[in-house]
Amino acid sequence: MTTGRVEAFSDGVIAIIITIMVLELRAPHDVTLAGLRPLLPVFGSYVMSYVYIGIYWSNHHHLLHAAQHVTGKCLWANLHLLFWLSLVPFTTAWMGENHFATWPVALYGSVLLLSGVAYNILVRALLASPGNELLANALGSDLKGKISIVVYLVAIPLAFVSPWLSLALYIVVAITWLIPDRRIERNFGE
Amino acid sequence: MTTGRVEAFSDGVIAIIITIMVLELRAPHDVTLAGLRPLLPVFGSYVMSYVYIGIYWSNHHHLLHAAQHVTGKCLWANLHLLFWLSLVPFTTAWMGENHFATWPVALYGSVLLLSGVAYNILVRALLASPGNELLANALGSDLKGKISIVVYLVAIPLAFVSPWLSLALYIVVAITWLIPDRRIERNFGE
Amino acid sequence: MTTGRVEAFSDGVIAIIITIMVLELRAPHDVTLAGLRPLLPVFGSYVMSYVYIGIYWSNHHHLLHAAQHVTGKCLWANLHLLFWLSLVPFTTAWMGENHFATWPVALYGSVLLLSGVAYNILVRALLASPGNELLANALGSDLKGKISIVVYLVAIPLAFVSPWLSLALYIVVAITWLIPDRRIERNFGE
Amino acid sequence: MTTGRVEAFSDGVIAIIITIMVLELRAPHDVTLAGLRPLLPVFGSYVMSYVYIGIYWSNHHHLLHAAQHVTGKCLWANLHLLFWLSLVPFTTAWMGENHFATWPVALYGSVLLLSGVAYNILVRALLASPGNELLANALGSDLKGKISIVVYLVAIPLAFVSPWLSLALYIVVAITWLIPDRRIERNFGE
Repeated sequence: MTTGRVEAFSDGVIAIIITIMVLELRAPHDVTLAGLRPLLPVFGSYVMSYVYIGIYWSNHHHLLHAAQHVTGKCLWANLHLLFWLSLVPFTTAWMGENHFATWPVALYGSVLLLSGVAYNILVRALLASPGNELLANALGSDLKGKISIVVYLVAIPLAFVSPWLSLALYIVVAITWLIPDRRIERNFGE
Repeated sequence: MTTGRVEAFSDGVIAIIITIMVLELRAPHDVTLAGLRPLLPVFGSYVMSYVYIGIYWSNHHHLLHAAQHVTGKCLWANLHLLFWLSLVPFTTAWMGENHFATWPVALYGSVLLLSGVAYNILVRALLASPGNELLANALGSDLKGKISIVVYLVAIPLAFVSPWLSLALYIVVAITWLIPDRRIERNFGE
Repeated sequence: MTTGRVEAFSDGVIAIIITIMVLELRAPHDVTLAGLRPLLPVFGSYVMSYVYIGIYWSNHHHLLHAAQHVTGKCLWANLHLLFWLSLVPFTTAWMGENHFATWPVALYGSVLLLSGVAYNILVRALLASPGNELLANALGSDLKGKISIVVYLVAIPLAFVSPWLSLALYIVVAITWLIPDRRIERNFGE
Repeated sequence: MTTGRVEAFSDGVIAIIITIMVLELRAPHDVTLAGLRPLLPVFGSYVMSYVYIGIYWSNHHHLLHAAQHVTGKCLWANLHLLFWLSLVPFTTAWMGENHFATWPVALYGSVLLLSGVAYNILVRALLASPGNELLANALGSDLKGKISIVVYLVAIPLAFVSPWLSLALYIVVAITWLIPDRRIERNFGE
């Protein structure tokens, strides 16, 4: 089975996740610039989640581009990843509307952690599929994915010391991921 | 006519169904873990519906992958299936927000039942299309689909005895379906 | 330019239109069957609009399948059609929530009328594109489209006599369209 | 890497952006024509944003059709463009619900300006990708894009004199863009 429809469905789900987050930005009745100020934390958390979902889309794009075959197990590993990503709008809203309070920031990180684990499971399911031997060569050790998970595991409890420290770590992870997976691109790109 | 655009449109509708259910998870104002507790039944019903919609997407994917041709009748059998699936977010919300009360649980099962029947109608419409002879061989008797419908017919009235019994049966059906249709995969997969 | 991306984008918009209508079906707090009764007109108008949007998707599918080339003018004729269809969720909600009152029923028909006209403009834009000569043969006179427009023109003022008469006419038009455009299917289908 | 999935994902996001704007058109309880009057500014701003998003989709379609290759940098330039477009429903709602007041009109223009800049960045990222030499010939100087940015820069401060002047300029820009990029079409179209 080819990867075409898995990509199309994932694109649909990710496109909707990225877009419905904006519904949390409700137009204020105040028509001055001051009316926008209460929206700033909501906007800030939207930007962070947009970047994170963008990273997942971009890496997912590279990953499935390199893969040649998907099995039934891969379909469910993919649905499992999309499940955790689908919770991002909720954790983004809870965090943004409550000005980055402790529990919302910890939950936000937990969903990032579980999404990271789910991505790792998807990579392994694709590697285990027959016909994806080239992918194995291209992917290498996935060091960046493993480090991210460790950073999340540090950042989540840190929210109970200071949520801003956790946020700083989430931003650091995002920045490291903004660089696309050059190993795949080097091997498969034109 | 090829199956490409039917898949694309179905992917779109299913992606949106799966994603708008998450809008029912409204961010609470309480920033403690206790603030999430009232959301637990909503979350639980979201998980169940996510799995069900995922099953439909996965089976739909296998089914249309095996089919070669769609007629106008197939388009409408597909739209009919999507209609019942489109009601899942409503029944999920009614059930989750009312802590799995009798009528919501019975209605939830009824929409599952009608979706199951609609899927069966779609299978038959595809089998009746010229050029899909290979699909007939691959599909076999669709025993699992028929058993599911019988289980729903038992589970719906059972909600008036105890909604938890019905839920247990819905979960049993979901688990049996989580295993993809190996008959098709065996015959058509790589 | 090929029709691929026009189809994909239209599929996306139509899939969202069909799905967000269901958001109007808000889960009641009443957990008895009586709690669903006030939703009946909302549900009824949803069913009608679902069928109409399904018809447009199905005909659009047949039309673009038969077309080979799209020009910039076709893109805008298509966006113009999608604009009127995008108003269907609004008119559906206004009509359903107000139990099929006169003005909502008249406005609902007006949006159907303008969608019908927009579809006709799209057909003509496609026919005028170079390389679509086969489409011209396949489409014939589009009698059904012209009759629909006449029926809408009768049904809209009739809402001020009785909205139920208008609704009956909308349903009659829908039934005539449920039969896919066999002329195209006969010529281009497998 | 080919452009297929970038187009599909962008189509999804743009389709959702265009469609969720309609959710701002909430069905009034008043069933007379007078009940629709308060919706007129919301409707007007919806029409303008629909046309703008349509222009972006149409130009994006032409642009990626002409491009042959996308790099990781192009993916992010594209996500950056989609980010600003995703804010259009918010600025549209703020402007429409507040009858085109000064700050909302200025913010609306600012998001248009940033979208215009983001589109320009995407064009440059595509031109810098290896294998897109033909695109460079086809695109020419992008005079229209540069003029639009200048007009936005004039229109935004003008909102503090009169928001209607700004709106007039936004409409002028939209009209100039409604004409598709004939340079690309001439070179790559059939």
